[in-house]
Order: sequence, then structure tokens, then C-alpha cells
Amino acid sequence: MACLKVHGSVFSTAVLRVITCLNEKDLEFELVPINMAAKEHKKEPFISLNPFGQVPAFEDGDLKLFESRAITKYIAYEYKEKVTQLISMDSKKMAILAQWLEVEAHQYDPAASKLTFELVIKPLMLGLTSDGAVVEEYEGKLAKVLDVYEARLAESKYLAGDCFSLADLHHLPSINYLMGTQAKKLFESRPHVSAWCTDILARPAWTKTLAMQKKP
Amino acid sequence: MACLKVHGSVFSTAVLRVITCLNEKDLEFELVPINMAAKEHKKEPFISLNPFGQVPAFEDGDLKLFESRAITKYIAYEYKEKVTQLISMDSKKMAILAQWLEVEAHQYDPAASKLTFELVIKPLMLGLTSDGAVVEEYEGKLAKVLDVYEARLAESKYLAGDCFSLADLHHLPSINYLMGTQAKKLFESRPHVSAWCTDILARPAWTKTLAMQKKP
Repeated sequence: MACLKVHGSVFSTAVLRVITCLNEKDLEFELVPINMAAKEHKKEPFISLNPFGQVPAFEDGDLKLFESRAITKYIAYEYKEKVTQLISMDSKKMAILAQWLEVEAHQYDPAASKLTFELVIKPLMLGLTSDGAVVEEYEGKLAKVLDVYEARLAESKYLAGDCFSLADLHHLPSINYLMGTQAKKLFESRPHVSAWCTDILARPAWTKTLAMQKKP
Repeated sequence: MACLKVHGSVFSTAVLRVITCLNEKDLEFELVPINMAAKEHKKEPFISLNPFGQVPAFEDGDLKLFESRAITKYIAYEYKEKVTQLISMDSKKMAILAQWLEVEAHQYDPAASKLTFELVIKPLMLGLTSDGAVVEEYEGKLAKVLDVYEARLAESKYLAGDCFSLADLHHLPSINYLMGTQAKKLFESRPHVSAWCTDILARPAWTKTLAMQKKP
């Protein structure tokens, strides 16, 4: 029995973030499926793992956690010796990494999540029509964020420096979804952003994560 | 000349978060005022410190940072031996702290910031009228978050455990603003939340931060 457990759906970007982090560390884990269409994440027993009723929840032995970015940080520190180094122990490098982790959470993700909802979840999962005005507004917001990324990625191969880190990893689920929509033009029209996307989407850990969506 | 510099306005919640962290560590710093009414944060030279054009920006010698929560984490780690311990070096305690830092950023702050804008910034700083429907909607959202806090704070004195930490500190600026508005009922009607607010608002570091708003 695996002592690491992820509770959630493999279609949730937040769950995919955690699974990818585990795959980068080559850690075995048990996925405990949560049927979000049946709103299992809003009921017991899940609500005891996360009182906010959002996937994922995570267990490592007797440690129980929620909030995907807290879970990935825990995995990156607790298993720092294993396989890919996702963080730095140098305080100034850690500060730069922390800055780009916050940029993902507060600048990139609000726009990317809204577009993923409008362009992927509404049409493909909920059978609803995308709202063109909302899409246009948030494409504009994401474009401004990606302008900053383009300048940053012209200076360094990855967001926090020369090595792939947790800051890059956190972007993978929504980039992957948006690359299948009209919003891919925002990434592809910026050469350094485009090269960065190609690079991080080709990581074996991400391929392994995506394969979980195809299991029956 | 102080080697620590904070660029921003002392009325910004994000700037107040950083200043309070510096005060908890009893660190001297230089405040470089940014006139937000004149949109100095959207122009050079500020935009070179933060390409997203948001206060604060921070300097520690040759290290330049933006994103308030990345700055406070850097200060908490880099100066961890000084005065108040704001983080834990134990990996499981750090994980619980990281979880509550994410809760502040993703659950509490979106509602608290919106209410601060409607109930403080619009009427007192912009001369505009609050939107009652927006206030009602976000008071409902904040109430749900504070229900979770009430349960948590019935179990432990502070959000991340028995000691005051960065997770509590990050709430101070918006709690202080909201306590001067109709939204204070949301905090005062929950006994453990109310006791926690009273406790953290009474910290000398916070008093020292507030005094900076009164300087000419």
C-alpha cells in the first residue's frame, strides 16, 4: 500500500500539478478518485481532508495536506534528494524561485484558469458555450503576462534560472489544456515562451502524468 | 544607507505585509515612496523593478525582488535567527505553514481584497460609492472562509500551529482595514477568529507599521 495518496480527479489542473511533481520525483502514490460531477469534493469524507471542498487533498503517512502549491512545495523539500531538483537551498536562488512561484499563482494563473474554464471545461466537459467577451478579455490579460515571460525567458532558459524548477512545473497543466484551444496563439507567437512550452511539455514526468488521463 | 529598500506606498496592503515582516525582524530599511495616484508604479524606474507594475518592490543589496509574499518568505528565511521566528525548519511543520500561506493567498485574500477595495479604497481614497451587491457577494464568500478559520482556530491558537507565523502576518493589513468597516461583523461574530484578530493586531511590529501611515 502506497503511503502517498492523492485524492482528486486527473482532469483537474491542481491535481495534475501535484501528480507531475510526484512523477518528477519518481515517487509511487495511490490516486483516490473523486467524482467531481457527483460533487464528492463537497461532501464527507473528502471535506474532512479539505474543508474548502477543492481537489486535491494529499496524504504522506499521517501528514494530511491540501492546496496544490503547498503540496508540491512539501514534496520538493521532503524528497529534495530524489531525481529532479525542483528547488534550490541557496537563499537568494530560493527567493527568485519564490518570486516566480508567486507570479504563476497571482499573475499567470487567474488568466489561464479563466481561459481553461471558458475554452476547455465549458465546451468539452459541461456542454456549454464559451463566452466570447470573457475569452477576449482574459486573452488580453494573459498576453500581458506572457510579454513579461518572453522578456524573462530571453534572459534565462527557465523562469527561476538555468534549471527547470517548481515554478515552471506549476504551469504545465493549464499550458497543456490551452495548447488545444485558440489561446495557443498567445504562447506560439512569442519565440522564447514557445520554446519554453515545447521544452517543459516534453518532460517524461509530464508524459507520464498525461497517460493517467487515458486509463479506463 | 540602509541596504534593505522597500519601494511602495504605506497604504498598499501588499507593502504593509512586507513592512510588518521587516518590523517583526527588527530590521532597518529605507522606504522609497511610490506615488500611486501619479501612477509611478506603471512607469520607469519602478517598472524595471517589477515588470507587472505593482507595489512593492524590494532590494537587499544586489538582490531585487517583487511579489509581496515572495519578499516576506525571503526575509523570514534569510533573517531566520532574528527576533520572531516566522517559519519552521521542520519539514512537516513547514508543510502545514505552506498550506495556510496558500489558504491566505487563494481563499481569504480574493474576498478580503475585493471588500477592502469596495469598503475602504473606493469611498475613502477614490471618492467613489461602494457597490452594495458586490459587497454582499464578497461578504458571503469571506464568511465561508472565516467559518473554516473558526474551526481551525478552535484547535490551534494560530493558523499554522501554536506560534504566530508568516501565515498569520499576511492577513494583518486587510484585517486592519476591514475592522474599520461594516465587514468587521464577520470577524467579531466568530469567537476564535475575533480573539485571533485582537491578538495579532496588538503585536508591536504591527503598531510600528501603522505609525508609518501617520508620518507627514
